[in-house]
Amino acid sequence: MDTILSHAFVSEILGTGMLVLLGTGVVANVILPVNKGFNGGWLLINFGWGLAVFAGVYTAFKSGAHLNPAVTLGLLAADAPFATLTGPGGAVEATIEPTVSNALWYILAEFIGAFIGAVLCFLAYKKHFDEDADPGVKLAVFSTGPAIRSYTWNLITEIIGTFVLVFVVIAFGKTPSGLGPLAVALLVVGIGASLGGPTGYAINPARDLGPRIAHFVLPIRGKGSSDWSYSWVPVLGPVIGGVLAGLAGAAYT
Amino acid sequence: MDTILSHAFVSEILGTGMLVLLGTGVVANVILPVNKGFNGGWLLINFGWGLAVFAGVYTAFKSGAHLNPAVTLGLLAADAPFATLTGPGGAVEATIEPTVSNALWYILAEFIGAFIGAVLCFLAYKKHFDEDADPGVKLAVFSTGPAIRSYTWNLITEIIGTFVLVFVVIAFGKTPSGLGPLAVALLVVGIGASLGGPTGYAINPARDLGPRIAHFVLPIRGKGSSDWSYSWVPVLGPVIGGVLAGLAGAAYT
Amino acid sequence: MDTILSHAFVSEILGTGMLVLLGTGVVANVILPVNKGFNGGWLLINFGWGLAVFAGVYTAFKSGAHLNPAVTLGLLAADAPFATLTGPGGAVEATIEPTVSNALWYILAEFIGAFIGAVLCFLAYKKHFDEDADPGVKLAVFSTGPAIRSYTWNLITEIIGTFVLVFVVIAFGKTPSGLGPLAVALLVVGIGASLGGPTGYAINPARDLGPRIAHFVLPIRGKGSSDWSYSWVPVLGPVIGGVLAGLAGAAYT
Amino acid sequence: MDTILSHAFVSEILGTGMLVLLGTGVVANVILPVNKGFNGGWLLINFGWGLAVFAGVYTAFKSGAHLNPAVTLGLLAADAPFATLTGPGGAVEATIEPTVSNALWYILAEFIGAFIGAVLCFLAYKKHFDEDADPGVKLAVFSTGPAIRSYTWNLITEIIGTFVLVFVVIAFGKTPSGLGPLAVALLVVGIGASLGGPTGYAINPARDLGPRIAHFVLPIRGKGSSDWSYSWVPVLGPVIGGVLAGLAGAAYT
Repeated sequence: MDTILSHAFVSEILGTGMLVLLGTGVVANVILPVNKGFNGGWLLINFGWGLAVFAGVYTAFKSGAHLNPAVTLGLLAADAPFATLTGPGGAVEATIEPTVSNALWYILAEFIGAFIGAVLCFLAYKKHFDEDADPGVKLAVFSTGPAIRSYTWNLITEIIGTFVLVFVVIAFGKTPSGLGPLAVALLVVGIGASLGGPTGYAINPARDLGPRIAHFVLPIRGKGSSDWSYSWVPVLGPVIGGVLAGLAGAAYT
Repeated sequence: MDTILSHAFVSEILGTGMLVLLGTGVVANVILPVNKGFNGGWLLINFGWGLAVFAGVYTAFKSGAHLNPAVTLGLLAADAPFATLTGPGGAVEATIEPTVSNALWYILAEFIGAFIGAVLCFLAYKKHFDEDADPGVKLAVFSTGPAIRSYTWNLITEIIGTFVLVFVVIAFGKTPSGLGPLAVALLVVGIGASLGGPTGYAINPARDLGPRIAHFVLPIRGKGSSDWSYSWVPVLGPVIGGVLAGLAGAAYT
Repeated sequence: MDTILSHAFVSEILGTGMLVLLGTGVVANVILPVNKGFNGGWLLINFGWGLAVFAGVYTAFKSGAHLNPAVTLGLLAADAPFATLTGPGGAVEATIEPTVSNALWYILAEFIGAFIGAVLCFLAYKKHFDEDADPGVKLAVFSTGPAIRSYTWNLITEIIGTFVLVFVVIAFGKTPSGLGPLAVALLVVGIGASLGGPTGYAINPARDLGPRIAHFVLPIRGKGSSDWSYSWVPVLGPVIGGVLAGLAGAAYT
Repeated sequence: MDTILSHAFVSEILGTGMLVLLGTGVVANVILPVNKGFNGGWLLINFGWGLAVFAGVYTAFKSGAHLNPAVTLGLLAADAPFATLTGPGGAVEATIEPTVSNALWYILAEFIGAFIGAVLCFLAYKKHFDEDADPGVKLAVFSTGPAIRSYTWNLITEIIGTFVLVFVVIAFGKTPSGLGPLAVALLVVGIGASLGGPTGYAINPARDLGPRIAHFVLPIRGKGSSDWSYSWVPVLGPVIGGVLAGLAGAAYT
């Protein structure tokens, strides 16, 4: 692993950790008892996750801020660079190429970061996890679950949601603006508002599976099942959606 | 149809499809049973539709992102270019002129896209459409309806709302900013918050009629009337409002 | 009145009309019966008013978009130009000087615009004004009123709120950004959230008195008093706050 | 104290005053009786505090807008300039160096500003403070308190929240955007949404202790304890989090 890739590896860990800390954090705030944001509503969750992306993208400035294996695989499918790093004057200093090897490093970093972020959320909300609550509620801080369980239709919802995410991110480059990381943050707010109802919008395998593993290993008071039977849906759906969007985006843009 | 127009045709389909998928999606999330955003409130719906515009505008970068026949007809009335396409350096590469023929292609694409977007929303929320709900609720995911039925006053509300949309969009060009597609997204959030109360703010004939047709043809469990008696209001109102705004905007700016 | 000033006069009418149409509109949506945004909450009102400013500022691009006598008088007190108009290349083409005569024209336009905006809101929500509701609710669509009536303390609250508005607007120029009209829109969202509780944040004499006059003259079903005994507070408070902020801003920046 | 530092001193007072006036204001609006924003929800509080930062940063353009001893100490730990002041053409005119002496002046100004802001909030909401309410509610307008009291875990939550704030602020410089002060405002919205549940997110010693002193000295009707036993947590936690973030940020960026 050369220097640039090793920096990108750390960057994806930190950025995905930031994303998942803030993202799982807003869920904890809204659904765990005795919190100041308890029952704060769906829009609060949408903004929380969107601004989690916002903070994560700024954090991961050395790696193009994928923060999501679906993005990494979408760019790999599109044969688009993983990151274009620029120096002080805006000149391109390095490009991280979309190779399978690089993709595997990115994805590994994303899972490590997501796991760490979930652990930090557990620490930030420790006293609230100690309160009595349904085991399903405690799991829901970490991982998504369907409102109505149906593997086929849940998968379709996740495919559509992730397709929107990756396709529009690819299209961002075609319309200049000064929004920076705010653009993708708002896109995630919008996907959550519009397509999050049935499955809780994982739209990111690392965001879902990393915290699920954390839930499995952490000593959470009164925790129940980590719901492994559903765990493949928010992994496979985003992967399919991301790859389809990468292919469609490469053909369209 | 030359290459630029054919690209614009596809662009309007994709952009309007994105708009309607996310826009009808947020309504589904808020009003269909068992969703995570159920009863999430009017501001959630406003942000959902606004960010649907946001994603749609980025998607439709090859056509000037009208996404709305009222915008197309407003620009035609104002004799303003439909799209000014620029190359990498910002130089103008092509202009799509405001002709009746081009307008018809744009409007056709907008209706096709709106229909497709509504179908995708139906797929994303399939299990929730299968739940028991009032037939009027299921229609309301697709199309607008008045809070108090009065064709005259409903028409006036839609005219005023669409006038605001198209007039301010025309004024955008006079105040430079780095907001890009966020400006129109926020304008739509504002119109929904401020003028959406009486009719649900169609302010776009394609957004309303395209999904209404989808509602009519799709195999939705327990669906009722598509309310064709009201369907002309959210078509005619936005057309009048858009044309008036185009004329006023051309005179003022 | 020369050409530039006459254009600015029309611009202030249109911009303030847009502001008040959308601002009073969101209140109508939230407090008049049978609306889709009924009981939508304070944050919805805050965003509605903020985005009303957003649309109004874009509309009033020929006059520097004061939209508010408190801003006009604050700039007069600060001896700062009312508007700096630029041409296509960004070169300054004209400046509107802060004279008493110009201020009077601006303020007259702001009141005319606010009156027109309120009439348009009445038309957009006509069927909802026809519903039974407390006369105080119908007035509250148009004008502010105190949560706890106390002329002294209500005045202080309005002075503080308007001081924040005008002082920060003056400071905007010192920190470049690409936000354009979004900056003042968000500032108004913030003032409403933070200082709007006691008096409903008029922070603008035209926004309050113009619609109050409209309430007085319009044929609103079941309307009551226009509460003239309170009407001077949201005029005098903002004038004091704006002038103080103009003086303080000129000394500080 | 030379001219630049004395300007920065005033700037930090004004900016932190603006921050705390608007920040404590939104809490007053939501939790004090008879307010128009009463029970407006957690997202309203998050936006209120975020936009309080927004206004405060614009105000404090002469000092780099720390507004927060945790930021000042984080920059000191990172050995990063406190402020880089530019002239009209964007050329650097002066830098305020990260020395212990400068840090003390900054922190003193931040506490003075926070105290003044809290007093202004008291004046703006005077009639609402006069209403009957639980003494704990009246204190909660001024200072944070834990949802579940546990000094150790409350401290950890404040450390994590402040670390996120300062670390991401340091990373802002690496990703150019046109957001200006909106970036940090949105970051604070996000931290409040995601990490504010357990302790109410002081993440700023001046924001918490300054208003607590104001609560102690002001003649608030029916006030109770200023809860000094908890007061060290929202001071020490943010200091630790800010310094750790400064060190980590300097190593990473």
